Amino acid sequence: MVGTGPGATDLVTPRARLAIESADVIAGYRTYLELVREFISEGQEVISSAMMQEVDRCRKALEAACAGRRVALVCGGDPGIYAMAGLVFELAQRAEKENPAPLPVIEIIPGIPALGSCAAILGAPLMHDFAAISLSDLLTPWELIEKRLHAAASADFVIVLYNPKSKKRAGHIEQARDIIMKYRPAHTPVGIVVSATREAESVELATLENMTGHDINMQTTVIVGNTRTFTWQGRMITPRGYDKKYSLG
Amino acid sequence: MVGTGPGATDLVTPRARLAIESADVIAGYRTYLELVREFISEGQEVISSAMMQEVDRCRKALEAACAGRRVALVCGGDPGIYAMAGLVFELAQRAEKENPAPLPVIEIIPGIPALGSCAAILGAPLMHDFAAISLSDLLTPWELIEKRLHAAASADFVIVLYNPKSKKRAGHIEQARDIIMKYRPAHTPVGIVVSATREAESVELATLENMTGHDINMQTTVIVGNTRTFTWQGRMITPRGYDKKYSLG
Repeated sequence: MVGTGPGATDLVTPRARLAIESADVIAGYRTYLELVREFISEGQEVISSAMMQEVDRCRKALEAACAGRRVALVCGGDPGIYAMAGLVFELAQRAEKENPAPLPVIEIIPGIPALGSCAAILGAPLMHDFAAISLSDLLTPWELIEKRLHAAASADFVIVLYNPKSKKRAGHIEQARDIIMKYRPAHTPVGIVVSATREAESVELATLENMTGHDINMQTTVIVGNTRTFTWQGRMITPRGYDKKYSLG
Repeated sequence: MVGTGPGATDLVTPRARLAIESADVIAGYRTYLELVREFISEGQEVISSAMMQEVDRCRKALEAACAGRRVALVCGGDPGIYAMAGLVFELAQRAEKENPAPLPVIEIIPGIPALGSCAAILGAPLMHDFAAISLSDLLTPWELIEKRLHAAASADFVIVLYNPKSKKRAGHIEQARDIIMKYRPAHTPVGIVVSATREAESVELATLENMTGHDINMQTTVIVGNTRTFTWQGRMITPRGYDKKYSLG
């Protein structure tokens, strides 16, 4: 499992690059493979697949590994954060039950996660406690997502929203905003980052009140500040301290 | 601001490495500078400082940058997650008020954060919504930390505990465990990682009930599973789905 970070080639770690270059088989979602194409050479087998085919992709990668081949399953960001690492383990666990053959060694190579690359572009919004919440209800009941939004907002966590919007659930981001606004002022800073470090990168600073007027889609990460977050020179900054024990004087 | 990740040289991104190699001045906490010493050459000025001197370190780095020098302020992990990025912006904001001279350009180069490197070593604990909470009350009232622990535990977030223990607050980790146990079974998996990817690395799988019997210090990251997290072959895995819409058939 190879995390390739947000997209820029110089944010791919040497360990991830070597894993791709030395693999017999490289599997991944088409868009992510395209971002690391310079590390892939002609003799390597490539299993490229479309969005939403995660289970199929992971199963093929696992089958190739079980057959003794060295496989790099490529994920954008970090494979362990809302990505495919868990799925691979779940599939391996099932394979073990069905077939007593020895399983391949599974190694997770972490990558820069979306929350980190987006925070870096925005400034320093994650300097204090934060919660990551996916607004996709494909695999999670919406009631639980709402409960988490209430919990995170009421305890003044900075909130990172993953999968904020798709065609099928365009209203979730408005519902999330409405929940958070029960606990935070309308002017709370919100950072909206699309395609961090890629050609199509777009960065916007908004407020809780007007955030849904901005362009938000599946490639977007949204970071909602806590009650202390402020903006300065186009940056979004959450201070480290809630009291004043450290003097900046 | 240069994030160098957990410690292993091959998890430092090329962008971070180039920023260090091309700097006139390199500043950082002694331990982190030691981990990237192979990127530092003789002609470069090094401002090395001890733990707890963050404000001094950041101020010196900013002063050097204001004087026109190219500065790499090195942070382990990600500079934007519980690290120095916010402090540098806060200091720059003050400098601007006191002195109308133009400020240097501040760029944040993200690194693999501790939560990502520790999750990768443990398996796949962060596959679902999670909250990061620091147990240090140096800059945050303990009451707020407790409130966040209750909120995160009650809404079934996976919980990443930063700064779980120091000599001055050895009891915080027990208090945190007691709060989380109000909402989760005693057998909930807990991953304990010390010095990820470094020579002194240690990884232990525990349970909520027995976690405080394990060795936990300031270099430790603790990940508490949600109610669905399980262990398999020494790995800690949080499933992606709360329902069964995806078939692993």
